[in-house]
Amino acid sequence: MTQTYNVAVVGATGLVGEAIVELLESRDFPVGELFVLASNESAGKPVYFKGRSIKVGDLADFDFSQVQIALFSAGSAVAAEYAPRAVDAGCVVIDNSSCFRNEPEVPLVVPEVNPERVREHCGIIANPNCSTIQMLVALAPIYRYAGIRRINVATYQAVSGAGRQAVEELARQTALLLNARDVDNQHFAKQMAFNVLPQIDSLDDSGYSGEELKMVWETRKILEDDEIAVTPTCVRVPVFFGHSEAVHLETRDPISALEVRELLQQAPGIEVLDEAQDGGWATPVTEAAGKDAVFVSRIREDITAENGINLWVVSDNVRKGAALNAVQIAELLIREPF
Amino acid sequence: MTQTYNVAVVGATGLVGEAIVELLESRDFPVGELFVLASNESAGKPVYFKGRSIKVGDLADFDFSQVQIALFSAGSAVAAEYAPRAVDAGCVVIDNSSCFRNEPEVPLVVPEVNPERVREHCGIIANPNCSTIQMLVALAPIYRYAGIRRINVATYQAVSGAGRQAVEELARQTALLLNARDVDNQHFAKQMAFNVLPQIDSLDDSGYSGEELKMVWETRKILEDDEIAVTPTCVRVPVFFGHSEAVHLETRDPISALEVRELLQQAPGIEVLDEAQDGGWATPVTEAAGKDAVFVSRIREDITAENGINLWVVSDNVRKGAALNAVQIAELLIREPF
Repeated sequence: MTQTYNVAVVGATGLVGEAIVELLESRDFPVGELFVLASNESAGKPVYFKGRSIKVGDLADFDFSQVQIALFSAGSAVAAEYAPRAVDAGCVVIDNSSCFRNEPEVPLVVPEVNPERVREHCGIIANPNCSTIQMLVALAPIYRYAGIRRINVATYQAVSGAGRQAVEELARQTALLLNARDVDNQHFAKQMAFNVLPQIDSLDDSGYSGEELKMVWETRKILEDDEIAVTPTCVRVPVFFGHSEAVHLETRDPISALEVRELLQQAPGIEVLDEAQDGGWATPVTEAAGKDAVFVSRIREDITAENGINLWVVSDNVRKGAALNAVQIAELLIREPF
Repeated sequence: MTQTYNVAVVGATGLVGEAIVELLESRDFPVGELFVLASNESAGKPVYFKGRSIKVGDLADFDFSQVQIALFSAGSAVAAEYAPRAVDAGCVVIDNSSCFRNEPEVPLVVPEVNPERVREHCGIIANPNCSTIQMLVALAPIYRYAGIRRINVATYQAVSGAGRQAVEELARQTALLLNARDVDNQHFAKQMAFNVLPQIDSLDDSGYSGEELKMVWETRKILEDDEIAVTPTCVRVPVFFGHSEAVHLETRDPISALEVRELLQQAPGIEVLDEAQDGGWATPVTEAAGKDAVFVSRIREDITAENGINLWVVSDNVRKGAALNAVQIAELLIREPF
């Protein structure tokens, strides 16, 4: 008989929480009992799992000693308050927020990149930022083969990365504009429909946004390389699901586009879609949304600089960028007693 | 009495042609007689100029000896056929297509960057690509002050850069999707609504797209610097008007973000919008569309590399990226007898 684990999903009514519940089912995670939790205002709502309806429980009242694994996707404030309680109750927490990512004793894990770090947890394992995850799935094979000195990256990030209200704002604004009505901005600082917004998360004194800083230091922590220079510009685009990234690399050793293509074709979690013709590349809508893979396209050598490799990287930000990566961490965790 | 010039606008019914006619009026260009020309199928349509209607003439029948200046925005094939005829008739051609840009004897002019080259024409002056124009307006002051070794740039280009049919396709697809209907792709290789497409123009053997190659060599020609390394990824986004660019620079000499800000604030054609707060930056819809300026935001030093400066550059691709730049070239041309 297969061992099963009681699992709690915290933030179960959000976009990522919903996807976690769906993935636990579709990937046959050995769930004993599933507890779906959220703030008081969502308590009592139904969540569907394996053909039955489970009532959302109030996180504030939950006894974490009932579960072995808790998947958190409820933001930093909730994680800061409840993750330590869960750990004290003997539970392992996999947290999607940025709350613990920078703590030295907390592993920051992308299963395709540094799975071995899962075992070093002290109760909490952090899920990296969505933009970092898909970039590093694509870059890790190149990093191991040729080294990487610099990463210039510009992102094209879907509104779902900002949660359900952001998705609704894009839909609402688009409908209003098509009916020649004025729009207002509730979630975003400026009109999101038919527009691009060059700020994700707040700006600090360096002029970098929070999202950009995450890509800088999460990359260093995951690759365990403090020398790697990451220069991001993070931009929100009017896409519902799927982040894209234009990645320009400077590798340590020379590597050809052909070598990169062969490396990535053999690498886990990657689908290379790179035909030299119209449409021979991946986009958020037509390839990535709803899929597990990180898609890599437009693999080319930099014609103006040595050791330059350019890529286009697309993935479903709610799945591989968040929910799927968290469930994959849980799958690593249960391979051995933990 | 002011000298006037007879002017022909070739491709007058396109998005750029329409904007040229509007700018000739709003900028009080000293037009004697205006001829608006297009292919046979558009002939007879009305174009409005200074309160009166002018009938579109058939380009094939036009006698260019009637005009001193011809502004072409009708694509490379039309330019290749008709621009030499116009030159033979004694006319100066300002061409928006890429047909002549690479010819050594054809000046490639951005009035804020290399206005002096206008005088060296042999009948044809080329207008650079939209993405190149706005990038170089923003970078020329930095180039002159500190030198630039490398430019990594990722673009967020509006559909209007691909013409009226592309604008209609985005509008049509968006409306269909909001009504839960299937979309088909007539202009673009994949769905454009709520999606981003990482190819503009065809791909060559190097894996670069035509649009990317233009940014590489047009930058070198305009700055007259064959050493400058430009690495672009050009991407179409679901925005109607206004191109954006995430630009990461490596300068020759050190320069601070503060120095860049001061330089650009004093530079012609640039509006610096760079407040360290939510929304303190330019976007295509809320700032650039319908405006003349190139907007520069998110000016910051690269925290991981020396001599690194990052910028966000936004401008109306139909105006400064095409029509306005062409009309400004015409304005330079008539300052002295030509």
